[in-house]
Amino acid sequence: MSTNGMQNLEQGNRVYAADFTQGDLALPPSQNYAVLTCMDARIDPAAAFGIPLGAAHVIRNAGASARDAFRSLVVSQQLLGTTEVLVVKHTGCGMLTFDNETAKDLVRKNKGFAAAKEVEGIDFLSFSDLEAKIKEDVEWLKSTAIEEGIRITGWVYEIESGKVRQVV
Amino acid sequence: MSTNGMQNLEQGNRVYAADFTQGDLALPPSQNYAVLTCMDARIDPAAAFGIPLGAAHVIRNAGASARDAFRSLVVSQQLLGTTEVLVVKHTGCGMLTFDNETAKDLVRKNKGFAAAKEVEGIDFLSFSDLEAKIKEDVEWLKSTAIEEGIRITGWVYEIESGKVRQVV
Repeated sequence: MSTNGMQNLEQGNRVYAADFTQGDLALPPSQNYAVLTCMDARIDPAAAFGIPLGAAHVIRNAGASARDAFRSLVVSQQLLGTTEVLVVKHTGCGMLTFDNETAKDLVRKNKGFAAAKEVEGIDFLSFSDLEAKIKEDVEWLKSTAIEEGIRITGWVYEIESGKVRQVV
Repeated sequence: MSTNGMQNLEQGNRVYAADFTQGDLALPPSQNYAVLTCMDARIDPAAAFGIPLGAAHVIRNAGASARDAFRSLVVSQQLLGTTEVLVVKHTGCGMLTFDNETAKDLVRKNKGFAAAKEVEGIDFLSFSDLEAKIKEDVEWLKSTAIEEGIRITGWVYEIESGKVRQVV
């Protein structure tokens, strides 16, 4: 059975590969930076954040959590030489809509007690104030930065307008 | 001081936002799937994997690690209703080039003993066999899937050709 995802992947990739000419890009990002943003379906980082192919690492998780991205950021900075991180969270983020208790209640309601029990130990890393959380993540990254001289900035992407603005 | 990343973001976003017309997309992915892929700078998932804006969550970390993506996948499936995961790792992945010891040696060599000491506790989640690791991650996700009925497939993206092929 073919699914939405498989169909998009196979058909979209056929078109993409037919015109593909950038097979010789180097492994380390050519512009030495990393973007940390949310997995939200409404964000297309390459297009919306102007990232040329090969230029930057793009790390994505639920809520653009810096803690959750720590291993990837260490690899990016320590092993692949990036010197800049853009933290981009966004308006309308799912992680703004529930705390751990609400999330677990939702799982119980949607999926039943067995499922709720299995997610009991998870910290969903949700947050209630978008700009405050961006500042907090940037501060945390600065305080834990393994290396001096990494430039870290924080931004809001507005899913309603497609615009970014700098917070910190 | 403006940096590469900030310049790309501000200039690229100005162009993107000027033509942006999709400000009313819903929070849950419209095509109910998630893509888990690597943070590698040479991958543009929306273009290479045919993902329409708003259709799918895109989770990215170093090596497209399923374990590292667990929290995000729980949010995607349990709270936002996705029912399919495409795991896409790629040729030439940085995580193929070192194990934990090699990574820590590299940090020591590049950044000195203080940095090496700070990453001592990290599991880099590197791997040595691309296709075997894809199969292993898909199996692990199936075994830990909180919910029945999630369709999980595994793919290789060839950075040399821009082509994907299914592994499992």
